[in-house]
Amino acid sequence: MNHRSDMFVRNCWYCAGWDYHLTQGKTSLLARRIANEPLVLYRKPNGAVVAMEDRCCHRQAPLHLGQKEGDALRCMYHGMKFGPDGICIEIPGQEKIPPQARVRTFPVVERDNWIWVWMGDPAKADPALIPFAIGPSDKNWNIKTSQMSVRANHRLEIANLMDLSHLTWIHRKTLGGNPAWVTAKIKRTPLERGVNSDFWMYSTPAPAFAQHLFPPAMLFDIHMNVDVTLPCNFILHFEAWSAGTATEGPSNGQLILDSYSCQAVTPVDQDNVEYYYSWGSSVATDLPGLSDMLREGVDAAFLEDKAMLEAQHRNVKERPDGNRLSIVHDAGPAMMLRILDQFLAAESESP
Amino acid sequence: MNHRSDMFVRNCWYCAGWDYHLTQGKTSLLARRIANEPLVLYRKPNGAVVAMEDRCCHRQAPLHLGQKEGDALRCMYHGMKFGPDGICIEIPGQEKIPPQARVRTFPVVERDNWIWVWMGDPAKADPALIPFAIGPSDKNWNIKTSQMSVRANHRLEIANLMDLSHLTWIHRKTLGGNPAWVTAKIKRTPLERGVNSDFWMYSTPAPAFAQHLFPPAMLFDIHMNVDVTLPCNFILHFEAWSAGTATEGPSNGQLILDSYSCQAVTPVDQDNVEYYYSWGSSVATDLPGLSDMLREGVDAAFLEDKAMLEAQHRNVKERPDGNRLSIVHDAGPAMMLRILDQFLAAESESP
Amino acid sequence: MNHRSDMFVRNCWYCAGWDYHLTQGKTSLLARRIANEPLVLYRKPNGAVVAMEDRCCHRQAPLHLGQKEGDALRCMYHGMKFGPDGICIEIPGQEKIPPQARVRTFPVVERDNWIWVWMGDPAKADPALIPFAIGPSDKNWNIKTSQMSVRANHRLEIANLMDLSHLTWIHRKTLGGNPAWVTAKIKRTPLERGVNSDFWMYSTPAPAFAQHLFPPAMLFDIHMNVDVTLPCNFILHFEAWSAGTATEGPSNGQLILDSYSCQAVTPVDQDNVEYYYSWGSSVATDLPGLSDMLREGVDAAFLEDKAMLEAQHRNVKERPDGNRLSIVHDAGPAMMLRILDQFLAAESESP
Repeated sequence: MNHRSDMFVRNCWYCAGWDYHLTQGKTSLLARRIANEPLVLYRKPNGAVVAMEDRCCHRQAPLHLGQKEGDALRCMYHGMKFGPDGICIEIPGQEKIPPQARVRTFPVVERDNWIWVWMGDPAKADPALIPFAIGPSDKNWNIKTSQMSVRANHRLEIANLMDLSHLTWIHRKTLGGNPAWVTAKIKRTPLERGVNSDFWMYSTPAPAFAQHLFPPAMLFDIHMNVDVTLPCNFILHFEAWSAGTATEGPSNGQLILDSYSCQAVTPVDQDNVEYYYSWGSSVATDLPGLSDMLREGVDAAFLEDKAMLEAQHRNVKERPDGNRLSIVHDAGPAMMLRILDQFLAAESESP
Repeated sequence: MNHRSDMFVRNCWYCAGWDYHLTQGKTSLLARRIANEPLVLYRKPNGAVVAMEDRCCHRQAPLHLGQKEGDALRCMYHGMKFGPDGICIEIPGQEKIPPQARVRTFPVVERDNWIWVWMGDPAKADPALIPFAIGPSDKNWNIKTSQMSVRANHRLEIANLMDLSHLTWIHRKTLGGNPAWVTAKIKRTPLERGVNSDFWMYSTPAPAFAQHLFPPAMLFDIHMNVDVTLPCNFILHFEAWSAGTATEGPSNGQLILDSYSCQAVTPVDQDNVEYYYSWGSSVATDLPGLSDMLREGVDAAFLEDKAMLEAQHRNVKERPDGNRLSIVHDAGPAMMLRILDQFLAAESESP
Repeated sequence: MNHRSDMFVRNCWYCAGWDYHLTQGKTSLLARRIANEPLVLYRKPNGAVVAMEDRCCHRQAPLHLGQKEGDALRCMYHGMKFGPDGICIEIPGQEKIPPQARVRTFPVVERDNWIWVWMGDPAKADPALIPFAIGPSDKNWNIKTSQMSVRANHRLEIANLMDLSHLTWIHRKTLGGNPAWVTAKIKRTPLERGVNSDFWMYSTPAPAFAQHLFPPAMLFDIHMNVDVTLPCNFILHFEAWSAGTATEGPSNGQLILDSYSCQAVTPVDQDNVEYYYSWGSSVATDLPGLSDMLREGVDAAFLEDKAMLEAQHRNVKERPDGNRLSIVHDAGPAMMLRILDQFLAAESESP
């Protein structure tokens, strides 16, 4: 039973990718590792997605080398055929099918163009626990999508996403670059499985990657509202106004950009995460090329994070008990990591 | 002593490659790992092959970076020279040669264009234990040879070779593709160190890779006779007739193909095997390009096996105690794996 | 505390590279691993080199992705800024800087165009322990520099450098190739942290890589004087005369080459070393292209060593207790390895 490390919350929705990663094509079988479980995903003819353990119950052959047959998936080593519920419905050359001839399946929900898989007890798989997001098919937004692999533990990712002061430093050449990120007064509110962070920055310069679009001295009022939820989702509502005179509450400038960046960071195993992310403008504030530039900006910034987090991960792996000085910006990360630890503890105590 | 895992039978002939892998060339020194032992092989001027431990007895320098000198091999780190019996015959700069100045050598027999190395007690190295095979220099056959590396444990290979129902599934686009492989009635007979399997398939279509040669509806009677022996050899006599009216015993159709495919699968270490294999027609049933097509067919099929077995191996390594449902087609694999386990047990008990 | 293996002497100067590896450039930050410690090196505006642990004290982010600011280095994850003494002088967004906000720094000395780092107790960092060498900026010599990575333990490197009989064998096509290296009578003298080896070879042919420069039958008297010191430095004074009539003591031939080859072999971790090395002629005996040819020769020879030592290292790792026959040429290696072991033992006993 305990082949899994206990670092992953099981009763949780994990993003397995963008919906367009999985087609009705004959060979469209997606092998994914989520929370250290190898999965195979495919679509039934009605479009619904099935997620199965990627190991045949016979001799652990990989099912992602199998063949779709209607609603079913056939292992192409010895031909065992499994229904979408994981129950074996054919053993070629053998009449009797024993009841243990089955592979585990996982609840799946598609929402906002993401495929969500529940890795724990199916009875607890409540779709209401899937975080709110804006997907690329939403007609009111022009959302552009992307993907990145990072060789780092998800706890480092959580810490990264819960502390935006790092935009001043890591992202000085892209998304950040001004010191306002360090001093921003953030209002944090607990969510059922996460934390909401809300804050304003007034009269700040444009981020580095967008400064060429505006007069050099132009300043902005910026509003960030972020939901971070388990396992490691980051849903950002980002708005920018021309700088007004307000110093608290909503800006009284002119709305320039209303946008969403939705990021599902999926723990693959203890050393890897997979980012499925997006950025895009509301249709009302969009311009030709603008949302593509936003997506390009977040691509560039995530490469900066990737270099930092992968090296940090190697350092932490080498010295797990290395010195850890706590500073003011650890409040956000600590809040979210405590929630993760509470869920892990609760699951390890339940039978 | 116990640096070796106990997963390899020692008193056994292992194939170290095709004879043409080793020439009389000045630099023709072959480094091979067999049953987790690093070996160096070379030919003496009389053509005989020497197999030595690939570690100098001085400081473990690799002898495959050495130099052939007549019958001897000189380590090119400090110049120690070893006769073909592994006994040191020169230590440059030193007169006395201590008796422990020697490296281990291994009995070698060349047969059927394969080089066989005995990995156990030399006193027990009986050439009669080398399996029968047909090599490329046999004038009655037009045997074509090939080679492939697979990152999988040899037990998975044994299971693969002992259960030909997988031709229906893995090899549906190449060697297999019809369901007759699943239902074939196989007669299995114990051998001294293995199992003989013999069976007929009547009125079956041509395999996928040869269908273009015949009228679409043409059917065949097929006879397979296979010796599988330790460590993991597979000697196949394959005959095909135009379909006759017989439903048991020899076909009464017309002989179209009489062929041999000889496969020596050598365990390299616990995670790797090396395939040295062939296929070819009898001269009597050969046609220009036919035997090359057979070899091409088995190359393509073994790439299919490779993808499946390597992924299966990763799954099994991750969960050695993963669920294992047994099905009807496990009878053959179980028979051969039991023989392997009997030999392993016998060796672990002997002093 | 014991995350380090005890295979490295701490109170010792280790070479971190050639001085030109580190510039005043804005992004010139050098990440090095020495004796299994990750370091970052940079130059202050006055040119002095700083060596710091390459882990921020906050969350182990790599400082080599940081930013130089005057004498200081800023971690570019959360902006913590460290003075050249490793003490944190700024935590953005936080007024109080706790005393434990510091990273370890290491004493550095530049000498002979090498950067030397002291990996142990700073109070014991005596520059007098840095070995004598001739660097490329010495006006009396035309020293050419190079660098190579080798995947082998430093003990194997020490054995290699302390026994030059291997020139006859490994380097037969480059630096060596005649049997005189095997029989040379070497006078060895203990040094404070190493061994001096001094010997003459009379009337020997030119090494393989230089034979095209001379008449085929021309012979030479050669003098080698080598200091090998901890951790694994090799300082060679190499002189060649046209062969005279002397059979002991200085040659009475004509001086053809007076040269130095200085080699600092730095243990990276238990499986890797980094070579920083040179060769070059005295100005008095130099010719256009000669010193470049010497450097080219040592490059070629070190690739020969690399192939041998990396394979030897793999063999030794697989069987650490493998058979080790001692021969006459082990006297030198044993002498230096004993010194290493004495220093290791002394350090493990001190509190």
